[in-house]
Amino acid sequence: MIDRLVEKIKKTQAPVVVGLDPTMKLVPGHIQQQAFAEYGETTKGAAEAIWQFNKAIVDAVYDLIPAVKPQIAMYEQFGVEGLIAFQKTVEYCKQKGLIVIGDVKRGDIGSTSEAYAVGHLGRVRVGNTMCGGFDEDFATVNPYLGSDGVKPFIKVCQEEKKGIFVLVKTSNPSSGELQDRLVKEEDGNGRERPLYELVGEQVAKWGSECMGDSYSYVGAVVGATYPEQGRILRDIMPKAYILVPGYGAQGGKGSDLVHFFNKDGLGAIVNSSRGIIAAYQQEQYAKYGAENFADASRAAVLAMKEDIGQALAARG
Amino acid sequence: MIDRLVEKIKKTQAPVVVGLDPTMKLVPGHIQQQAFAEYGETTKGAAEAIWQFNKAIVDAVYDLIPAVKPQIAMYEQFGVEGLIAFQKTVEYCKQKGLIVIGDVKRGDIGSTSEAYAVGHLGRVRVGNTMCGGFDEDFATVNPYLGSDGVKPFIKVCQEEKKGIFVLVKTSNPSSGELQDRLVKEEDGNGRERPLYELVGEQVAKWGSECMGDSYSYVGAVVGATYPEQGRILRDIMPKAYILVPGYGAQGGKGSDLVHFFNKDGLGAIVNSSRGIIAAYQQEQYAKYGAENFADASRAAVLAMKEDIGQALAARG
Repeated sequence: MIDRLVEKIKKTQAPVVVGLDPTMKLVPGHIQQQAFAEYGETTKGAAEAIWQFNKAIVDAVYDLIPAVKPQIAMYEQFGVEGLIAFQKTVEYCKQKGLIVIGDVKRGDIGSTSEAYAVGHLGRVRVGNTMCGGFDEDFATVNPYLGSDGVKPFIKVCQEEKKGIFVLVKTSNPSSGELQDRLVKEEDGNGRERPLYELVGEQVAKWGSECMGDSYSYVGAVVGATYPEQGRILRDIMPKAYILVPGYGAQGGKGSDLVHFFNKDGLGAIVNSSRGIIAAYQQEQYAKYGAENFADASRAAVLAMKEDIGQALAARG
Repeated sequence: MIDRLVEKIKKTQAPVVVGLDPTMKLVPGHIQQQAFAEYGETTKGAAEAIWQFNKAIVDAVYDLIPAVKPQIAMYEQFGVEGLIAFQKTVEYCKQKGLIVIGDVKRGDIGSTSEAYAVGHLGRVRVGNTMCGGFDEDFATVNPYLGSDGVKPFIKVCQEEKKGIFVLVKTSNPSSGELQDRLVKEEDGNGRERPLYELVGEQVAKWGSECMGDSYSYVGAVVGATYPEQGRILRDIMPKAYILVPGYGAQGGKGSDLVHFFNKDGLGAIVNSSRGIIAAYQQEQYAKYGAENFADASRAAVLAMKEDIGQALAARG
């Protein structure tokens, strides 16, 4: 799957992933009203609204980008009905040829991580039958529980030719509280390094055991809001694809991103969520109006591609 | 809700939570066959099997214990159908008067954690209506993203009078890879302490802002498999309830547990999952047979209560 991702990035010339993270505040009024008319102001009505919203955006941008990243929390907040919309979204995006990165940030003790891995990337045995769950192409994984919380995901990736992105340095303001802590290396030389570097080294090590053609099935999440750390982690994990959240609404700019890429122009894929899916709410794209929100999203994707392309070209 | 938990622990004389973590291997054959006859070897069939399994166990033990802890991964592995079974289980346990701890280990950047908090503990706005999601009483939370991943949960706890247990030192073998790392304190005195102690201090601090009568709404997860760390963390977080996984199948014993409790005999609640729900598969309870699996679970709960009670009494 990492090879397919690289190939699609080359083909679309877009190291871009659109975050399908719909909240009710982002869904235009006319879509909400239509869904509520059918299902009432219920979680089912909300789920219908976010599904219709997603579908229109995907239809408008699928030819421009390699991948989407639905954030499962935005669906899970509506309970089971929301998760039905998540599943429909995953399936629809795959039908459209998009690679789906499930932003699920799961991670638990070994036997439990195995269940998550199976549910999101693999198949589960029921009697003598193997059944699929959510069946994304990639999933994000939280490493706080250590290797035995991550390895079950890697095992399923090897079996199913899928991939993961391990949280290394997240984009949020307080990510440093634990991730930046200086920890002593265990080789007795007394050196101290931030925790995220050690997690980055683990990612490189796990990845060496499951390589695609040029990149590994084990990638990393590093926030656009921390470009300096991005540069360091790029060196520590040369074969890991870096999923970069935090562009746009969270404050990351194109020029911040160049350090996340390798010299081959590959190695990173940049996510934008609100900046794309709610482009119509921004002054810059207000002319489209709420009715044409999907066209505004398309324009925002094109602008993002240009911003990143220019930044990479300027690097030379 | 923390006050209700304390009250129920006192009433049942059982600082015990039963982990409803059903995998197909634990569900007796006759229940599987009945479910497959109705729904086939599908995720719906699996979901029906685990729901019937859960229901029988809850019916057999609900009068003995204060709380249950369904591990959502075991449901999520079956996709949407599994999550429907999760929701039915949560609702049924609440009807039976049990407190429900959703073992979801969620945690993300602020706006995303807010969606998880709403989906699991709160209510979500749909139009002008507030709707419930999974609606557990407590949830477990992963702190790797720092305060802004935890605070949205605390806000919902304050609004809804619910609670969380933050992962501090998990029960699995590799939990030390990140959690035990020695990190330098930031006050410049050069002291080094394991990461889990710093997370424990955060738990104490967060908890001071939302206190019940004698314990805080913000608890902690500390594995039974690490009794020495339990003792240290007990001192660091005197007002936090400690949820203790790892008893039984993972290797923790009653005598390991005493350090997790305060002098008042309160302050900790011990989880057992496989040891209770699949008791019928153990030699000790084999006499019940697979048909009477729920009776075996009841016997195992009684034995666990006695084991913990004796350990606490021996401490004096």
